[in-house]
Amino acid sequence: GDSKRITVIPGDGIGPEVIEPALAVLDVLALGVRLDVLDQVNAETYLSTGSALSPADLDRIRTSEATLLGAVGDPRLGDTAYVRSVLTTLRSELDLYANYRPVRLWHDRLSPLRDDTRRAIDCVIVRENTEGLYSGVGGSTRTGSPQEIAIDVDLNTHHGVSRILDFAFSVARRSVCVVDKANAVRNGGQLWQRCWHEAVERHPQFDTSHLYVDAAAMKLVTDPTAFDVIVTNNSYGDILSDLTAALAGGLGVAASANLNPATRQGLFEPVHGSAPDIAGTGIANPFAAILSAALLIEHLGHAEEADAVRRAVAAAVEAGRVTPDLGGSLSTKEVGAVVLAEL
Amino acid sequence: GDSKRITVIPGDGIGPEVIEPALAVLDVLALGVRLDVLDQVNAETYLSTGSALSPADLDRIRTSEATLLGAVGDPRLGDTAYVRSVLTTLRSELDLYANYRPVRLWHDRLSPLRDDTRRAIDCVIVRENTEGLYSGVGGSTRTGSPQEIAIDVDLNTHHGVSRILDFAFSVARRSVCVVDKANAVRNGGQLWQRCWHEAVERHPQFDTSHLYVDAAAMKLVTDPTAFDVIVTNNSYGDILSDLTAALAGGLGVAASANLNPATRQGLFEPVHGSAPDIAGTGIANPFAAILSAALLIEHLGHAEEADAVRRAVAAAVEAGRVTPDLGGSLSTKEVGAVVLAEL
Ligand SMILES: CC(C)[C@H](C(=O)O)[C@@H](O)C(=O)O
Ligand SMILES: CC(C)[C@H](C(=O)O)[C@@H](O)C(=O)O
Repeated sequence: GDSKRITVIPGDGIGPEVIEPALAVLDVLALGVRLDVLDQVNAETYLSTGSALSPADLDRIRTSEATLLGAVGDPRLGDTAYVRSVLTTLRSELDLYANYRPVRLWHDRLSPLRDDTRRAIDCVIVRENTEGLYSGVGGSTRTGSPQEIAIDVDLNTHHGVSRILDFAFSVARRSVCVVDKANAVRNGGQLWQRCWHEAVERHPQFDTSHLYVDAAAMKLVTDPTAFDVIVTNNSYGDILSDLTAALAGGLGVAASANLNPATRQGLFEPVHGSAPDIAGTGIANPFAAILSAALLIEHLGHAEEADAVRRAVAAAVEAGRVTPDLGGSLSTKEVGAVVLAEL
Repeated sequence: GDSKRITVIPGDGIGPEVIEPALAVLDVLALGVRLDVLDQVNAETYLSTGSALSPADLDRIRTSEATLLGAVGDPRLGDTAYVRSVLTTLRSELDLYANYRPVRLWHDRLSPLRDDTRRAIDCVIVRENTEGLYSGVGGSTRTGSPQEIAIDVDLNTHHGVSRILDFAFSVARRSVCVVDKANAVRNGGQLWQRCWHEAVERHPQFDTSHLYVDAAAMKLVTDPTAFDVIVTNNSYGDILSDLTAALAGGLGVAASANLNPATRQGLFEPVHGSAPDIAGTGIANPFAAILSAALLIEHLGHAEEADAVRRAVAAAVEAGRVTPDLGGSLSTKEVGAVVLAEL
């Protein structure tokens, strides 16, 4: 039939454990999507063949409607080349330039902040996903000697900055706050400032503000509800999105999308990674994977069903029917069953 | 006589307002130091002569025992060239490679975190102050066009990384945590990792740990008492030190030192900046300047007197005799008087 094909990469560690309930959610919604599970994209394959993602896999991903990924990472492989060979390859091969990280406090109990702050954070971090300090440009000289000099290039282009700013405006409800360090990191800073002023002119209907990254980190802690959309570069986005996740219950509920808004390609993944320390114990929190699946189906046009999934998660949290990281005592499977029952 | 000479730069905005009570504290301690006040280092001078810091000023700073700075910054001048012409010049001319930011929660009431977390943060952020993304190396091409490419170089040297790590160990009580992004920013990351392993071998008596910067930001919020000394590069240090300050009451109590441990030169300053929005209203919090003066006299060998100053600040906070930013209703001058009375 002409049903939509979704690629699924369970991956490593807790990846397969949290993908299972996420797929059960997709199943119960009966959206008519077809799941194409790439079980072979994992550390085992990397260890035996030197590459986890074959050209054929990449092709199946590229021609599918969207991809849902559990986690990649394996303690035997350190945390560098392998993870990047999957994540960074997908981001760059599909030019997934927009990292979209919605953050919402699902329940007061999950906030690390005190009662008398307005702590019901509900915002989106938009992180540039293809340039900045992650450009891969750089090198070192006199390597290994006491005179070593190492260089990593923080590379920003008008093309790259403008398109991420436009994306940020496209997902904003009320306001967009741009974060940079234009007072100290001058060249990229001035480019971001110029692109920002141009983007603000293109989107006059929103409230806008600007913060230096150090001030943004402070304000997130002291006034978290001040933000709707925060847009920033790859490095600051990495830091601020995890900080923001910590203000909303941590990585157990942190979903993300890596998008190319032009081609409509997208990779959806929980932020938590493979968590080898708890893999196999059955206590991994499936919410982040389930909420990533919700982002995926929203991307495919099923906004109502996505909202239903979020309401089911909120109900489970409200009832305290959660895994130990959120203060509960249920297993991954039990939490998955609670969400299905709510649906 | 042979009394020690201290340079004082009141600067702009609230700088002179908070320096006044700090100098009163130095005065009452009767340490026999001589104050050399450089009233002319400010935005007015920059506006009329194009330079705020003359070679003669720099000489007086260089030949003094230490420098206490209030704040530099002026809304008429934007926030870039002028501030950097003072701060960055001092950091690089005196090679003040170690930014030392002690953070302590003076009172439970000042924490933005909830009661049931162990929130009594008491740590030091050590920030590399002379290289990294602040190297000043870089440029742009096709500037101003839709094809602009801007480059800022994140420059790390074995020399620079090793000396900041050694400094971090020299101020540690129990443990040192190094923070980098070696899994993504490869060249500098690998150099930091190598220097780190070398430094750990030189200082085997401490507990040590490593975090990626995104994980460090999360852990600061969820488990702030886990840290003794955090050491990191210029950019991550900028962000994490302000985040940490926010967890301990904010910039109103954030003191800092910029040190060259080899030459023993030092610049001591509150972190808050010139705060033009409240300058002249008399409500600026003098604690950060007073605590910076405490760091200065500790640096000169007066550790007991420095502790007495800190106890006086703690007593004022305990009694709620504080400025509005900390929930009180006293003025800068009144808080200064409270601290003097406690001493
Ligand atoms: C003003 C700015 C360049 C400066 C910095 O980041 O160094 C400030 O934020 C600080 O932390 O002292
Ligand atoms: C694993 C690492 C390279 C990655 C990143 O910083 O991009 C991760 O922290 C993330 O945020 O997805």
